Amino acid sequence: MFISFEGLDGCGKSTQIELLAAYFERNGIEYVRVREPGGTSLGEEIRKLLLHKEMCARSELLLFLASRAQLVEEVIKPALSRGVVVIADRFAHSSNAYQGCGRGLGYELVKSLNDFATDRVYPDIVFFLDIPEETVFQRLGVEKDRIERETSEFWRNVRTCYMKMAQEEPERFIVIDGTADVSEIHEKIIGVVRARMRGKKY
Amino acid sequence: MFISFEGLDGCGKSTQIELLAAYFERNGIEYVRVREPGGTSLGEEIRKLLLHKEMCARSELLLFLASRAQLVEEVIKPALSRGVVVIADRFAHSSNAYQGCGRGLGYELVKSLNDFATDRVYPDIVFFLDIPEETVFQRLGVEKDRIERETSEFWRNVRTCYMKMAQEEPERFIVIDGTADVSEIHEKIIGVVRARMRGKKY
Repeated sequence: MFISFEGLDGCGKSTQIELLAAYFERNGIEYVRVREPGGTSLGEEIRKLLLHKEMCARSELLLFLASRAQLVEEVIKPALSRGVVVIADRFAHSSNAYQGCGRGLGYELVKSLNDFATDRVYPDIVFFLDIPEETVFQRLGVEKDRIERETSEFWRNVRTCYMKMAQEEPERFIVIDGTADVSEIHEKIIGVVRARMRGKKY
Repeated sequence: MFISFEGLDGCGKSTQIELLAAYFERNGIEYVRVREPGGTSLGEEIRKLLLHKEMCARSELLLFLASRAQLVEEVIKPALSRGVVVIADRFAHSSNAYQGCGRGLGYELVKSLNDFATDRVYPDIVFFLDIPEETVFQRLGVEKDRIERETSEFWRNVRTCYMKMAQEEPERFIVIDGTADVSEIHEKIIGVVRARMRGKKY
């Protein structure tokens, strides 16, 4: 089973991934956690470039995709074929939302580039922790008046894109209210994972 | 004017680029030379990764494309808009031929990825220095019996792909017999460049 967590920055992914990993450990379920960009020797080098080098939007996307392709080949495919659960802190859908819609490179275009990079290996479940745009500013601790109008628009576009994907792929996307209580969200996630592991659709 | 040189390894591109650059200098024509991967601060870092890291074929292509995208934005577009001639030692068509056909990632797919990476900035003239597959082995100084059958097939596929592109884009591709005399090839190249600079098609 391949599970990814998606959402706006500050949506609570990390906390929920910790809780899910702890659940798997308590229940003796083997899992591997991956993050993007990174997760492989090549990916970690690409991560450094993404953090420290000046680059255009197209190069940025292509570097994310190069890191993702290697992660799929080196870590995700082998884990899944061994029956190990993969938990990803962001995956392909982040590029669709952030680069495709947020940066304006084009949703359909980024989606087709993702098809290539991932070799069409996509998560079975995407947990989308939905928070309003304003919550990003609050949780990231940035004073709202410092945020330009364009930036606010950026987050709105990213969120709208996630919503669109959730509608397009209802089997895959589980939309969760990210403003709810941490333990309440965790229970919901466990419920979905358990049901899927018993072969049921949620 | 944007000019690229393409061909199998050992086809004589470097020699002809030197001669063309010398011609431009003698005639006071401003030009810039670029190589791939590389040519920008980001591109040189990507070059190191391509030379030293283990990676899958898809990551390799995506890194070439990331380097190319940055080269287009940072060097090629500004040069062309200043009226400076750009001479490229390999460009997008190399990926179509080497990764698309040689590595078998798919010609149409790589072509569409190139459209994205280059922002559809393509050379006005592509000089394809055509040599037979066997010449690769001779010129690269590798004993022929050490080359596996598959490798020979690789070069044949790359060459066939270049031929196909030359047929698809007869306005852009100038096919030159790479086994001809160095000065003879140079004269032909100069003839084409001059004619184009006078606004004529060759």
